[in-house]
Amino acid sequence: MRVRGAPAIGIAGAYGVVLASFEPRSFSREARRLREARPTAVNLAWAVDRMLRRAEREGAEPGQLLEEAQAIHEEDRLACEAIGRAGQEALADRVLTHCNAGALATGGIGTALAPIYVARAAGRDVQVYATETRPLLQGARLTAWELSRAGVPVTLVADGAVAGLLASGRVGAVLVGADRVAANGDTANKIGTYAIALAAARHGVPFYVAAPASTFDLSTPAGDRIRIEERSPDEVRTAGGRRTAPARVAAWNPAFDVTPHELIAGFVTDRGLLRPPFETSLGGAFGGRTLGPPRLP
Amino acid sequence: MRVRGAPAIGIAGAYGVVLASFEPRSFSREARRLREARPTAVNLAWAVDRMLRRAEREGAEPGQLLEEAQAIHEEDRLACEAIGRAGQEALADRVLTHCNAGALATGGIGTALAPIYVARAAGRDVQVYATETRPLLQGARLTAWELSRAGVPVTLVADGAVAGLLASGRVGAVLVGADRVAANGDTANKIGTYAIALAAARHGVPFYVAAPASTFDLSTPAGDRIRIEERSPDEVRTAGGRRTAPARVAAWNPAFDVTPHELIAGFVTDRGLLRPPFETSLGGAFGGRTLGPPRLP
Repeated sequence: MRVRGAPAIGIAGAYGVVLASFEPRSFSREARRLREARPTAVNLAWAVDRMLRRAEREGAEPGQLLEEAQAIHEEDRLACEAIGRAGQEALADRVLTHCNAGALATGGIGTALAPIYVARAAGRDVQVYATETRPLLQGARLTAWELSRAGVPVTLVADGAVAGLLASGRVGAVLVGADRVAANGDTANKIGTYAIALAAARHGVPFYVAAPASTFDLSTPAGDRIRIEERSPDEVRTAGGRRTAPARVAAWNPAFDVTPHELIAGFVTDRGLLRPPFETSLGGAFGGRTLGPPRLP
Repeated sequence: MRVRGAPAIGIAGAYGVVLASFEPRSFSREARRLREARPTAVNLAWAVDRMLRRAEREGAEPGQLLEEAQAIHEEDRLACEAIGRAGQEALADRVLTHCNAGALATGGIGTALAPIYVARAAGRDVQVYATETRPLLQGARLTAWELSRAGVPVTLVADGAVAGLLASGRVGAVLVGADRVAANGDTANKIGTYAIALAAARHGVPFYVAAPASTFDLSTPAGDRIRIEERSPDEVRTAGGRRTAPARVAAWNPAFDVTPHELIAGFVTDRGLLRPPFETSLGGAFGGRTLGPPRLP
């Protein structure tokens, strides 16, 4: 968790493969270990696999691999900008986001936060509600910090407040990131996302997922096949570094949940805003089960 | 917040009226102030009004009023036991609860937790999932402590994990308390309750509200008329006593939300398990807009 945010995890994995290539004898083993370090964010496997294809073509040579890692990094930066532009029509003046899918999670200006930065730069008065995102408080610690530092008005809410917030009419759209999007559009993202999607559906607030192509996993047919990382119970038994519940109490701590595709109004991607049915909108990408390299600007 | 839990707030209010009666000149003013100290839990107004009716009949005499406050206290203890018995058929082997509606919230064995205590005492293997309940962590600090101390197996989850938990099939029923039930069954309870009800409905898990008669407010027709207390933003900007978000960041901190009656499978009350349509099941209580004194065992 020193590195978090699916795109940033992918980029870190790519640079990790470069470092591993300095030790040719352990290279394959270390690359495999890197690939499995986090099970849910598909960007990690995607980036490591891409590095290994390069190594297969041209040998595990650090200089070549650094070039590939830097390309992954730069493509992610550009993908964030493309997501920012594509998200303009999904955006409302008051947006709810969850966890952190901003600059601190990517190689650029973020995924879910990118359209907000682009809109603000164009002079649009966009304000953000951010969940604190227990147990690790990425919303309070990262999103609130990142947005307020960038001059974007941000209002923090407890995770439990999302249904009441959406019922209140204060929010015009929900925009979240993703750790893995299955072929049918089911989306794994930070625990708590699914509850937001349910409340958004109930109150007619459109719920969008923002992610680069590297987050779409066409080899996973549906959300029930996505492996969900479970983390230490102590993350839940403590808050702000302090124990809150007795140590003898058990805790269940999945890091992600899966939002079914029918609750998602559209995907804000580096190839534009895709709406269901995705078979059509992805131009054969979902239907034909391929999603080629991003068309960079 | 030194006293919390709707029934306990009512009992404390009643004893407060006794104390106020030692100063006859300020009695009415102080009683009014007590009545308005917390806006959402109707038990407070209910208890203070009952004390004032007694004072009107027999004069604001401390000895008489103490008798009335003790009666309110004792009736709540018995109501908890009746709720515990009434809740047996609503109970599943794995129950999810929210916030704290246990012994620490009432004059007896609790409301939502009462059926669990009664079932365990009868040898039934009931286990509990408890949300931590941000921002004040009543689930982690109170429910997890109270249940584990009583030997009830309890598993803590982050508030954001409830939809994933209900999707996982681990939970057979949801049982929560209430701060105010409107005449149509809409229920104000701790912030986060509504999101649980939405996820429970989605996954076919019955969602029950446990409350004594004093929590039913027949003068409020529906949930949109319930005043929701908003508390300090600092409760959200801190966790475990530590600042988590920049002080310049705004926070919205409603203490309660409203769950619409159509999401509620039934009310576990001291008069039995009431199921919709409530006009029928309450035997004219909701329809006829009266709910007399509890029939004590």
